[in-house]
Amino acid sequence: MSSFWQNHIKLSVFGESHGPAIGATLDGLPAGVPIDETLIEEEMKRRAASGKALATPRKEADRVEIVSGLFNGRTTGTPLTGIIRNGNTRSGDYARTKDLMRPGHADYTAKLRYGGYSDYRGGGHFSGRLTAPLVFAGSVCKQVLAAECPGLVISSRIVSIGRVFDDTTLTPEDYETFHAADPMFPLADETKKEAMLAEIKETALEEDSVGGVIEGFATGVPGGLGSPMFDGVESVLASLLYAIPAVKGVSFGAGFDFATMRGSLANDAFVTDGKTVRTRTNHNGGINGGITNAMPIVFRVAFKPTPSIAKTQRTVNLAEMTETDIHIKGRHDPCIVLRAAPVVEAACAVGLLDLLVEMKGVMS
Amino acid sequence: MSSFWQNHIKLSVFGESHGPAIGATLDGLPAGVPIDETLIEEEMKRRAASGKALATPRKEADRVEIVSGLFNGRTTGTPLTGIIRNGNTRSGDYARTKDLMRPGHADYTAKLRYGGYSDYRGGGHFSGRLTAPLVFAGSVCKQVLAAECPGLVISSRIVSIGRVFDDTTLTPEDYETFHAADPMFPLADETKKEAMLAEIKETALEEDSVGGVIEGFATGVPGGLGSPMFDGVESVLASLLYAIPAVKGVSFGAGFDFATMRGSLANDAFVTDGKTVRTRTNHNGGINGGITNAMPIVFRVAFKPTPSIAKTQRTVNLAEMTETDIHIKGRHDPCIVLRAAPVVEAACAVGLLDLLVEMKGVMS
Amino acid sequence: MSSFWQNHIKLSVFGESHGPAIGATLDGLPAGVPIDETLIEEEMKRRAASGKALATPRKEADRVEIVSGLFNGRTTGTPLTGIIRNGNTRSGDYARTKDLMRPGHADYTAKLRYGGYSDYRGGGHFSGRLTAPLVFAGSVCKQVLAAECPGLVISSRIVSIGRVFDDTTLTPEDYETFHAADPMFPLADETKKEAMLAEIKETALEEDSVGGVIEGFATGVPGGLGSPMFDGVESVLASLLYAIPAVKGVSFGAGFDFATMRGSLANDAFVTDGKTVRTRTNHNGGINGGITNAMPIVFRVAFKPTPSIAKTQRTVNLAEMTETDIHIKGRHDPCIVLRAAPVVEAACAVGLLDLLVEMKGVMS
Amino acid sequence: MSSFWQNHIKLSVFGESHGPAIGATLDGLPAGVPIDETLIEEEMKRRAASGKALATPRKEADRVEIVSGLFNGRTTGTPLTGIIRNGNTRSGDYARTKDLMRPGHADYTAKLRYGGYSDYRGGGHFSGRLTAPLVFAGSVCKQVLAAECPGLVISSRIVSIGRVFDDTTLTPEDYETFHAADPMFPLADETKKEAMLAEIKETALEEDSVGGVIEGFATGVPGGLGSPMFDGVESVLASLLYAIPAVKGVSFGAGFDFATMRGSLANDAFVTDGKTVRTRTNHNGGINGGITNAMPIVFRVAFKPTPSIAKTQRTVNLAEMTETDIHIKGRHDPCIVLRAAPVVEAACAVGLLDLLVEMKGVMS
Repeated sequence: MSSFWQNHIKLSVFGESHGPAIGATLDGLPAGVPIDETLIEEEMKRRAASGKALATPRKEADRVEIVSGLFNGRTTGTPLTGIIRNGNTRSGDYARTKDLMRPGHADYTAKLRYGGYSDYRGGGHFSGRLTAPLVFAGSVCKQVLAAECPGLVISSRIVSIGRVFDDTTLTPEDYETFHAADPMFPLADETKKEAMLAEIKETALEEDSVGGVIEGFATGVPGGLGSPMFDGVESVLASLLYAIPAVKGVSFGAGFDFATMRGSLANDAFVTDGKTVRTRTNHNGGINGGITNAMPIVFRVAFKPTPSIAKTQRTVNLAEMTETDIHIKGRHDPCIVLRAAPVVEAACAVGLLDLLVEMKGVMS
Repeated sequence: MSSFWQNHIKLSVFGESHGPAIGATLDGLPAGVPIDETLIEEEMKRRAASGKALATPRKEADRVEIVSGLFNGRTTGTPLTGIIRNGNTRSGDYARTKDLMRPGHADYTAKLRYGGYSDYRGGGHFSGRLTAPLVFAGSVCKQVLAAECPGLVISSRIVSIGRVFDDTTLTPEDYETFHAADPMFPLADETKKEAMLAEIKETALEEDSVGGVIEGFATGVPGGLGSPMFDGVESVLASLLYAIPAVKGVSFGAGFDFATMRGSLANDAFVTDGKTVRTRTNHNGGINGGITNAMPIVFRVAFKPTPSIAKTQRTVNLAEMTETDIHIKGRHDPCIVLRAAPVVEAACAVGLLDLLVEMKGVMS
Repeated sequence: MSSFWQNHIKLSVFGESHGPAIGATLDGLPAGVPIDETLIEEEMKRRAASGKALATPRKEADRVEIVSGLFNGRTTGTPLTGIIRNGNTRSGDYARTKDLMRPGHADYTAKLRYGGYSDYRGGGHFSGRLTAPLVFAGSVCKQVLAAECPGLVISSRIVSIGRVFDDTTLTPEDYETFHAADPMFPLADETKKEAMLAEIKETALEEDSVGGVIEGFATGVPGGLGSPMFDGVESVLASLLYAIPAVKGVSFGAGFDFATMRGSLANDAFVTDGKTVRTRTNHNGGINGGITNAMPIVFRVAFKPTPSIAKTQRTVNLAEMTETDIHIKGRHDPCIVLRAAPVVEAACAVGLLDLLVEMKGVMS
Repeated sequence: MSSFWQNHIKLSVFGESHGPAIGATLDGLPAGVPIDETLIEEEMKRRAASGKALATPRKEADRVEIVSGLFNGRTTGTPLTGIIRNGNTRSGDYARTKDLMRPGHADYTAKLRYGGYSDYRGGGHFSGRLTAPLVFAGSVCKQVLAAECPGLVISSRIVSIGRVFDDTTLTPEDYETFHAADPMFPLADETKKEAMLAEIKETALEEDSVGGVIEGFATGVPGGLGSPMFDGVESVLASLLYAIPAVKGVSFGAGFDFATMRGSLANDAFVTDGKTVRTRTNHNGGINGGITNAMPIVFRVAFKPTPSIAKTQRTVNLAEMTETDIHIKGRHDPCIVLRAAPVVEAACAVGLLDLLVEMKGVMS
């Protein structure tokens, strides 16, 4: 595995924050699916984040060059690779601070794992920047899913930013018709936007950062996808979602709230109109026994606060083995949750396409 | 994947609740590790659950016959297979109710996935009974881990059962010295036992069931294990934990609580005594950037209430496509959380051994 | 991998020659395919070999107990496991000679690989006996293939035993109608049987052994199977065929003879009747660019002579690090080629089913 | 799998002959290994082939841009990606002939497999051009192997071109000291060069092509590598070697000659000097039971003649479903064997590094 994920769909993500380029290769795609590169661009823009939302301002979204696997606008069925050139990256800055382990980052563990040889500049392969190729791959998978399963939609909404919650409860029908007024800031309850922005702004003023929870969901998913024990929908999606930097919790349906529910409530009663079967409630998030039941797939992803903060922190200088202060320079994103929404959707898209290809084959 | 999990360690789990036998094969183990079968037996007993705890009473723990991979009491390095015979299984009972989809179970999704051909008796391959071979495999992996990393201990505690919480906060040092007074009911705060048992008893009287949260942890884990993006510790453990029936949430360290924390709090400051590096706090649960940092690995697993309840429920008769009442017969376990602790530890053991073998190789 | 093979179909083979049992688990099978256990028995008989053919006499074929994955005579879609109990195995004999490395066997390399902990009795996991679970798995796969692709037939013939060759050239049509007069001794030219048996008999009298070549073939295979580069038909089949003990050569179509051919001859011209496309010749053995072209798949497998011979050999006593004579006791099979035919077909069946499931999915 | 190969080392190869770029990603490499890019360049030159040898003249070798995984001249341990830009590729030529299935090529099977959507220009992903990223990956793996196992050398020699054979028999010692006078045309018997060149020249004059056999070998390989059944050295190497276009036969040690040998000859007697163990002969090519025995690994690879020939051939126009003549334009390589030597070595290097990492881990 490492930076290869492979099941029925295979995905390789490569690159470092300050290297020449980052990218991703998808293999095992069905052939002949039209890919609209403007849709990829849109997803890349969502990830690049707007200054409005107080996230790290970037001049423009990353441009993906597809160097293989696309011919006459359609997938060839052979590996599809997208490459994103890294911009002007001043790496001289990093040598001076490379022995200071940034708290909450992978600096120290990368040292342990790679013996000091990994690219430390800007977090190297651990940088949040590596979510860009993931979003690219996810956008391709979304388009393939849409072609193979008309009506299948993957979306997400922000459930909380710091201490501000949008605790709207959505019914299965709500998920099927969900439409975010602002795709850059998808909320079920638009009135929460202001408080959330205020939370981010306050955090930024304190030179601190804040986390949050994103709810991902997929509607129009065929029933019968997933192969327990180890290839159930939850296992597949969780293994992909935990590849996103800063994710520390993943739950499905009622998730941790299940623990306090009684079985008579938690069990979703089956109902029928004589032709189709649904569940009245959807506490199980569209998944029973690791297999989709055709109800909306619903999951939540907890993001810890961005570890990069301007505030002074204590840490260790690994070269000198002494404790010291650390001041992390640069423009920091006080809240990555907004930019994380397309990444969560991307991970979901890769996973669902994998599960679909398992069932239907690559030639269907 | 399906019921094969393979990375550096390979695990295949097979069998159905009412078939002749269930079992598991582990491959990729180092050779020459002594395996104590009485330790396996003890873990099997923990899973079999005691009547005291009000769980389903079973006369005795399942007996594992190891048919390969063990020679003169040591691993051979070739596949290690354990087989557990199923006891007297009256399967006639099931034919009558096979068209009634038990809410919260995999009956309906298995129909979708396997076209009606899966073994429906007692849940077939989806039965909680399939956690027995997982516990067997986990016990072997625990012993291999202990041999390869003296001091590495995998343990767990109950955090909540229904609405009764043991919200004790443990320091890193507490985890390293944790010892459950009652291994069958591991708690940080023993005084919560009575209330938890009362919660289970009350639920049983109501012909209902209740879920809970288990915290798993591992101490003495070497730093530097894990290979992000997709083979980080969180991805590996989550993919295994979600293979356990009824698990609907998995989080690491502060988990979903991270979302409301500020970065300055969430970031675990590094400290040193001049020789070794630790973190003062352990909000990240021993994992930064998907790689172990040698602090205790801490994760939480949310279990939904057992879907089998005696209470009448509404469901669909799939043969007739009509709604109907369903009364699930038999002795039901009102709370599987107690029995789930060794299963959670088993999943953790398989995952950690996999990560260790990746680093050190199978010949170390 | 190790003793797990997994792609779209997953196969785990476990056991040792003198352990309690050997067996195999297949996962990723389509659900609902009827499995006839008498067909499995017949394949097991072919492998068990008849005394007539001068191979090691065994009283009866191994009996497979299917303990999971089969319900009401059909595949469930969850793991299918078959177990074969080992008979009365006198293992005391082996301790005395365990330091004498049998030439041509895996005794010495197993020592290097497993540090002296592998089961040395009768070759342990390296024993030809482990082909029994492979034949079982192959028989299941053959039946699934026949159900999914009516008309697909996997067969084999003996091309040479020692210095006796059946150099009959078969046309594509010949392969499609091939029928062995004696399924236990499949030949294109029946008149070669006597000379081959004489070769075996002579070898046996000399306390020696002899190898041979088997040609495997599959007709009725759909075009379009295989995913180059690394998952082409040749890669998939070769990786499985080389898992058979004593196999040292695998080639496809004209194989090594290609090297001396001119392109104008080697290239199979395409022909059409206006409706379908075929190739006039089939030098490429039904595979172009790693993908099936719907012509018969033809491959050859070279077996080295059985390493166990009665003749005195020189070797090393590893405990004493001295050179010494070795006399291998017991009834030896002077030629395993006859018994290997069903094993070659089994490996082919697993591979082709894997390639089919990749294309059509598990739910087709 | 498809164009992903993954075991302990992971390799993804992407690109098409006439797309913007081709490349490869290696993952699972140990960190900190110095990579000399001039050594990569040299291997790329060997593959690019010299006009002297009558192979397709190319102006210069492909230039690899390493965009990730290399930092300060050493492997980072995270994915290492190399990209090769395709030159001026006139693709207009191809549209006119895209319905004419070139005999011996993958044109027709790619149509079946990818439904007509694969890139047909110059063979697309099936082009021999895709061996360039494989050679790049192999060169990196060679350097890692050399760093981890000082003394390990992978090499190759030409055994035959068309009907001209160099049937020199090499002793184990010969392999250990083998040095090709002309690295571009490696022979054990230099006197065969002229006849081989004449064979190629003659073939070219006839507008035809010719195949050949390459012998690959590796010396200084540690004993104990390989994990049977399915991950034995032969399975691993064969699965990689069969990914090379035009390979139709792979054998180990005596290979197909084993079939006519007696066991007493085929078995390599073990000998010892009291300290180390070797085999007197090396018929088994350094591999017993799928595991290395520290003797030279020796294997042979049969290449069919290049399918592209100038001579008129018969084929099918798939759009019209009629038979027709086909004249393949362009400069054709009458013999790819010379250029294939570094490709064979590359496949071997990837496989051996995989087997080494399995044993020693990625951190050793």
